[in-house]
Amino acid sequence: MWTDGRYFLQASQQMDNNWTLMKMGLKETLSQEDWLISVLPENSTVGVDPWIIATDQWKNMSKALAGAGHSLVAVQDNLIDAIWMDRPTRPSTKLLTLGLGFTGLTWQDKMTALRSKMAERKISWFVATALDEIAWLFNLRGSDIEYNPVFFAYAIVGMNTIRLFVDIKRLAVPMVREHLQLDTPSKAELSIQTAPYESVFTELQAVCASLVPKEKVWISDKASCALTQVIPKAHRTLIPYTPLCLAKAVKNATEIQGMKMAHIKDAVALCELFAWLEKEVHLYVLLKCNFQYQQKDFVGLSFPSISSVGPNGAIIHYRPLPETNRTLSLNEIYLLDSGAQYIDGTTDVTRTMHFGSPSAYEKETFTYVLKGHIAVSAAIFPNGTKGHLLDSFARQALWESGLDYLHGTGHGVGCFLNVHEGPCGISYKTFADEPLEAGMIVSDEPGYYEDGLFGIRIENVVLVVPAKPKYNYRNKGSLTFEPLTLVPIQAKMVNTDILTQKERDWVNEYHRQCRETIGAELERQGRKEALDWLIRETQPIA
Amino acid sequence: MWTDGRYFLQASQQMDNNWTLMKMGLKETLSQEDWLISVLPENSTVGVDPWIIATDQWKNMSKALAGAGHSLVAVQDNLIDAIWMDRPTRPSTKLLTLGLGFTGLTWQDKMTALRSKMAERKISWFVATALDEIAWLFNLRGSDIEYNPVFFAYAIVGMNTIRLFVDIKRLAVPMVREHLQLDTPSKAELSIQTAPYESVFTELQAVCASLVPKEKVWISDKASCALTQVIPKAHRTLIPYTPLCLAKAVKNATEIQGMKMAHIKDAVALCELFAWLEKEVHLYVLLKCNFQYQQKDFVGLSFPSISSVGPNGAIIHYRPLPETNRTLSLNEIYLLDSGAQYIDGTTDVTRTMHFGSPSAYEKETFTYVLKGHIAVSAAIFPNGTKGHLLDSFARQALWESGLDYLHGTGHGVGCFLNVHEGPCGISYKTFADEPLEAGMIVSDEPGYYEDGLFGIRIENVVLVVPAKPKYNYRNKGSLTFEPLTLVPIQAKMVNTDILTQKERDWVNEYHRQCRETIGAELERQGRKEALDWLIRETQPIA
Repeated sequence: MWTDGRYFLQASQQMDNNWTLMKMGLKETLSQEDWLISVLPENSTVGVDPWIIATDQWKNMSKALAGAGHSLVAVQDNLIDAIWMDRPTRPSTKLLTLGLGFTGLTWQDKMTALRSKMAERKISWFVATALDEIAWLFNLRGSDIEYNPVFFAYAIVGMNTIRLFVDIKRLAVPMVREHLQLDTPSKAELSIQTAPYESVFTELQAVCASLVPKEKVWISDKASCALTQVIPKAHRTLIPYTPLCLAKAVKNATEIQGMKMAHIKDAVALCELFAWLEKEVHLYVLLKCNFQYQQKDFVGLSFPSISSVGPNGAIIHYRPLPETNRTLSLNEIYLLDSGAQYIDGTTDVTRTMHFGSPSAYEKETFTYVLKGHIAVSAAIFPNGTKGHLLDSFARQALWESGLDYLHGTGHGVGCFLNVHEGPCGISYKTFADEPLEAGMIVSDEPGYYEDGLFGIRIENVVLVVPAKPKYNYRNKGSLTFEPLTLVPIQAKMVNTDILTQKERDWVNEYHRQCRETIGAELERQGRKEALDWLIRETQPIA
Repeated sequence: MWTDGRYFLQASQQMDNNWTLMKMGLKETLSQEDWLISVLPENSTVGVDPWIIATDQWKNMSKALAGAGHSLVAVQDNLIDAIWMDRPTRPSTKLLTLGLGFTGLTWQDKMTALRSKMAERKISWFVATALDEIAWLFNLRGSDIEYNPVFFAYAIVGMNTIRLFVDIKRLAVPMVREHLQLDTPSKAELSIQTAPYESVFTELQAVCASLVPKEKVWISDKASCALTQVIPKAHRTLIPYTPLCLAKAVKNATEIQGMKMAHIKDAVALCELFAWLEKEVHLYVLLKCNFQYQQKDFVGLSFPSISSVGPNGAIIHYRPLPETNRTLSLNEIYLLDSGAQYIDGTTDVTRTMHFGSPSAYEKETFTYVLKGHIAVSAAIFPNGTKGHLLDSFARQALWESGLDYLHGTGHGVGCFLNVHEGPCGISYKTFADEPLEAGMIVSDEPGYYEDGLFGIRIENVVLVVPAKPKYNYRNKGSLTFEPLTLVPIQAKMVNTDILTQKERDWVNEYHRQCRETIGAELERQGRKEALDWLIRETQPIA
């Protein structure tokens, strides 16, 4: 079982002796390809299900195996399927249509923009396979996959035709039919032909059969190998990031406004929770936190809440389970990483707190993490900078004391879409990220983890915005971040001696914004206890 | 003509209208492949001389062209050769043998280490093509290429045989014959068969003809396409960094000691030059600086000195020419980037100074560059960190003011070898660098350039050394840098208000080291004026 630094501890705790943990990212760990090469007898054949391997993974693995005299082949029948008797049917939930007030652009506008990108690159067809890209393109949402408001679908877009592959039953709803103009298309080229989800394979074959020489079909290199191979090589153009992925990442004014509203609602709910937790420290840790449910436009969580006490916090993606539960106490650090889907936006926030007296060491390491958080959040950098170049800023204070954390610093965040999305991020691990642009939204979440003791993480969702520093080198312009998350950072955990004056100013200004924006909303909603807590927690630090 | 940010200004000044400058690294600039695709008629064929294109470049270009329906072919006859009437013959300079006192390891030891790496990876043959790797392996130096103390050669190493391809005349010298044990090999497997330089092609064909199935031959993916293609695909294993490249990068104790000595000699020469310049500001700028020539073991320069005044400084790799010369004055910034080859080591240092009164803006930008220099030099980071992750530290202060520079921050430095070497470096541009390790040597050289006005760069050569911070996360250990270059940084150019206390401390400690080490040597050599200058220039800043 291969997994990365976020799951080393959890995997070693949860797996029995039948498994070997392969710690990805460590120098001594073999990749799947190299491990296969090290154990396989000569001239072996390795089979994979081509529907569940991405083309770029297939290519890498196939090349490595071929180099060692083995071969990678696509298996017709998935061996797990053959013995999976009680397999549930593919979910087909109700589709939600989003109007202009939430999306800022009609699906017709998005289609036109996509086609102009295709024309620019002389591409005749585009095959959309990523579920969040399809949901974004058609301004539709579903709930087929827990936490991610997407629905199972494919789309094939030509210069004059649109084919949408989706469980046909879902299209019977009048509101959906009207939204997609299925019965009364405005223009011929915006008329959507619908077909069953499974028919994408044969339909793509038909499209490809009719191609004239030199016609090109765009498909993501993360699409399944099976679907990709339908397109003859001469016509296939693989792309790491589709035009939809790139367009979706840069949020428009309506989406930014929605994200801000969602974060206010989320902050209100969190302030209420924390105010209550502080009073009720003796309670058992929450098994499933969806404390946001009272808020307007709440749809669901954006990922399983990570609510952990003491040593459970060192499990970076801990999920509360009855057998590992710990009582919240005055003696241990509490970490809550939670996020929600609202119709207007998606949230993701982590706060680490202590309800008693944190130790000097806990405060010291918390403060290094805070310094890293601030270094990224307050960074000013030239337009065109890739997020991975900011990753070290988040680690500098930890590194200086010989500490580190084994995960990236940030990921792209969708707008009422997946809480993790490309093509941008802040991580030392990937170099394939696209440059940051004003309107992109990412998380800023450095951490520090001590196995068996505690976990610390401070996470805000931040918006990339233009910055106006003193100079403007080569008229390139500069960027910085604006926090969308507005939830106090516990001052009790901070060793203010380790902060610079600039960092103290940042904390105080951040808390002023929390008080101003969230305080007003708490007041409007008449949530007195939460407001008192917010005011206490946002006192300036010296 | 494609070139990167270091040469934008210079190229636009030096090229006439027959050329189009393609600025590499800018978003809007097409790569060579993409440009070819944009201008070529359908089904074109592009020819390249396979002897002067590296395999990795060939692969990229060939793939891109094939994807657009064109093809890349190797041409038999280089068209330039056909009209190059007065082509000089290949240089064949005297070979210099280096003893254990300079290398720390015999060539026999290096050969044994190489073979054990080959055995580890089940490799039968290794083809050495990089001239600095061959020079390092055999503990030989030459002067076939200006500034780089290498000689034209190839080597093919098997588990029991060694073939060295070099102009046979060079091997007539008794000292070289003895060094390589050509007449009295100690062991059969350390016996070197020599052959003419040009015979490598046919000899490699002969080696490959005798391979049994599964036998593998290692060759760098930067070797020429022509030589690489001699090895049948089934036997060919391309590597980005050869075992020689990796071993050479981590300097042993003898090499580190040599590098330290070389830097002391270089600093002595520089102090003397700067002391004299300060007195003689009215002189014309030096056309060719090799002021180091009086020092012991001086062999030559390690690159053409960059000695520039005022706006010439904005040309990052400026070479003094009669038609662009400027008189050194009290009104303009002077930048000197120089380096030398000594038998015990290679140097590369840049200092930027003003002999009159620098403007507030000049001081401000110099100070940002200094902050970046210190941020890298004083950085503490975990073992296994790649250099490119430190690049942003050098830019942080510039970025905060909206400024930047369009070159990397550092390159690997050889020991009496090429002043630029892989596999490590500090640059946002490359992701293929190998992790930094104690014993590696790199440059730390942020800058700032204003076209038409001035150039600023502060460069030290630094050694990667273990650091001992407070904690030791996962027992990984930490690293930092120790400056080998010990030449004062002009305090007059510093706006101390912009420095933090930590940065001021760094400067004062650095200057203390300069005074201690270089001062002692100046005293020993009786260079009174330079010593006075050094003492003046290393006064603590407040």
